[in-house]
Amino acid sequence: MKFSHSLTFRGLVCVVLMLVAAAATAADPLPSWNDGPGKSAIIEFVSKVTTPDSSGFVPEPERVATFDNDGTLWAEQPMYFQLLFALDRVKALAPQHPEWKTREPFASLLKGNVKGALAGGEHAIMDIVMETHAGMSNTEFEQIVKEWIATATHPTTHRPYTEMVYQPMLELLDYLRANGFKTFIVSGGGIEFMRPWVEAIYGIPPEQVVGSSIETKYELQDGKPVLVRQAAIDFIDDKAGKPVGINSHIGRRPVFAAGNSDGDLQMLEYTTIARDSADTTPRFGLLVRHTDAKREWAYDRKSHIGQLDKALDAASQRGWTVVDMKTDWKVVFPDN
Amino acid sequence: MKFSHSLTFRGLVCVVLMLVAAAATAADPLPSWNDGPGKSAIIEFVSKVTTPDSSGFVPEPERVATFDNDGTLWAEQPMYFQLLFALDRVKALAPQHPEWKTREPFASLLKGNVKGALAGGEHAIMDIVMETHAGMSNTEFEQIVKEWIATATHPTTHRPYTEMVYQPMLELLDYLRANGFKTFIVSGGGIEFMRPWVEAIYGIPPEQVVGSSIETKYELQDGKPVLVRQAAIDFIDDKAGKPVGINSHIGRRPVFAAGNSDGDLQMLEYTTIARDSADTTPRFGLLVRHTDAKREWAYDRKSHIGQLDKALDAASQRGWTVVDMKTDWKVVFPDN
Repeated sequence: MKFSHSLTFRGLVCVVLMLVAAAATAADPLPSWNDGPGKSAIIEFVSKVTTPDSSGFVPEPERVATFDNDGTLWAEQPMYFQLLFALDRVKALAPQHPEWKTREPFASLLKGNVKGALAGGEHAIMDIVMETHAGMSNTEFEQIVKEWIATATHPTTHRPYTEMVYQPMLELLDYLRANGFKTFIVSGGGIEFMRPWVEAIYGIPPEQVVGSSIETKYELQDGKPVLVRQAAIDFIDDKAGKPVGINSHIGRRPVFAAGNSDGDLQMLEYTTIARDSADTTPRFGLLVRHTDAKREWAYDRKSHIGQLDKALDAASQRGWTVVDMKTDWKVVFPDN
Repeated sequence: MKFSHSLTFRGLVCVVLMLVAAAATAADPLPSWNDGPGKSAIIEFVSKVTTPDSSGFVPEPERVATFDNDGTLWAEQPMYFQLLFALDRVKALAPQHPEWKTREPFASLLKGNVKGALAGGEHAIMDIVMETHAGMSNTEFEQIVKEWIATATHPTTHRPYTEMVYQPMLELLDYLRANGFKTFIVSGGGIEFMRPWVEAIYGIPPEQVVGSSIETKYELQDGKPVLVRQAAIDFIDDKAGKPVGINSHIGRRPVFAAGNSDGDLQMLEYTTIARDSADTTPRFGLLVRHTDAKREWAYDRKSHIGQLDKALDAASQRGWTVVDMKTDWKVVFPDN
């Protein structure tokens, strides 16, 4: 009984897999990408690393692809969505914090003066993050994020944030996975802010998310095991932190990395620069360039959010593929 | 051409998968385990979580199993093997460190007085670890570990360390994976000490290894990207650190955890204690008890290495399965 059941179920899974594979191979794997050098370079790279007996072949376990999140998989304007989450949390928590009425940056925030609040710079932002991201258990925070992501909408497009992901990048994630890649997020954003929703939206499970974190402390509360989020930075997964986070969580050097800003410069260096002349593994660096003020936003060298300056200079030197959102993408966001 | 190639290759993989599944289902999945309550409890648990439409069914992505390493997957006597590695490194590095002749704990070590050297306690051990584990790049350290694990032998059995793994636990890892579990190591040992060899020995890839770590710093050296190992502790993955490490790397609560000492107490609590009355997911805690002085070692409550005291008391209270090495295992180490 057990034998035949198991055989039948796996047989069915196999048939489905074969059909999916056949359909995927027959159709354009990146339908939202315009034909052009960017799309060609991606397809050529994937073909190279997946062709057995070719000099560029990469065994499946080593097909590691890392993606930045803010500005690479979803939008990041007018400010990082996690900061918008924090601002929403300040409003929600204000009744429990009467002292915020006179304490900056909260006082300005509660008067609707976001710019004034953020004028306090990094210190103000850290204050907001700690008040809204720490002091509860992991599971409580997960619940808060889930409720927010299910209900909150973007200030200018009024779409749910999960619809402000880039359709061409969703296709790229699927395409890489269909070719044996393991896809990871490597983001400056909070690891626990991303995990509750990225599996449903990007197909990336929690164990493949690398991000910034605050410290957590394990304890038994009323006999129940709890991880309590502490008001202290544990790790910042940005710039030179990205290779460190990649090594800590993945323990392999990626062969493909995608980013959009100077925060991704070191991740792309780490991924693509050959270690020595014997290191001939094909490697791919991708930068999403925000050039489409009409369908999304246009910003690069001078932007405070998602500044793309040094990494753009490095792209030509290193042979990274710069994706021009305006010309390379047929659509930006998924259709409703 | 591409269509049919892809179809054929996947078809072949599917046939192999079906054959493997059939063979695995038909045969005893744990041949090195004696029939008894331990083996029965494991098989019953796996059957419960993999039976669709049963109340205990756990979807595949949530089938996370975590394993301690020292004393759980491989032996740990007469001292942790990573410490034996460090002692071997001290000998190898001594010619470059003439000052060690008069500096403790190195002076004692180099005279063959290990006990005297370790009498300096935690401070002495930290000194040895930092001198032998830091100051080089990640890839250099990986190479050092690979060479050591390929050539070093155990001081009393004279077998390579990779043969001092527990055959019944290798079977358990395979059995869980054949049933859709993702297996992780969660060890107090160094994450970079384990990654170079655990994939070949346990079938656990680098991205599924959680361990203690020292800080690393990313830099370009002569234009090449390098992570340099710093002489500073980053994270200790032991005791209350294990749930923290699990959450950081995996982001899901395991449903199965195996350990052998008080260092695993919190991991087993975190894995098995229901959060509330709605939390009815089946959960499994396993403790390997070292009871076999003849085939391995016998130690528990009073041992300095792998002390099993509080966790043993907790086992009966929490319903964890205590595996008695002497009576539950037909063989301990793999045959040559």
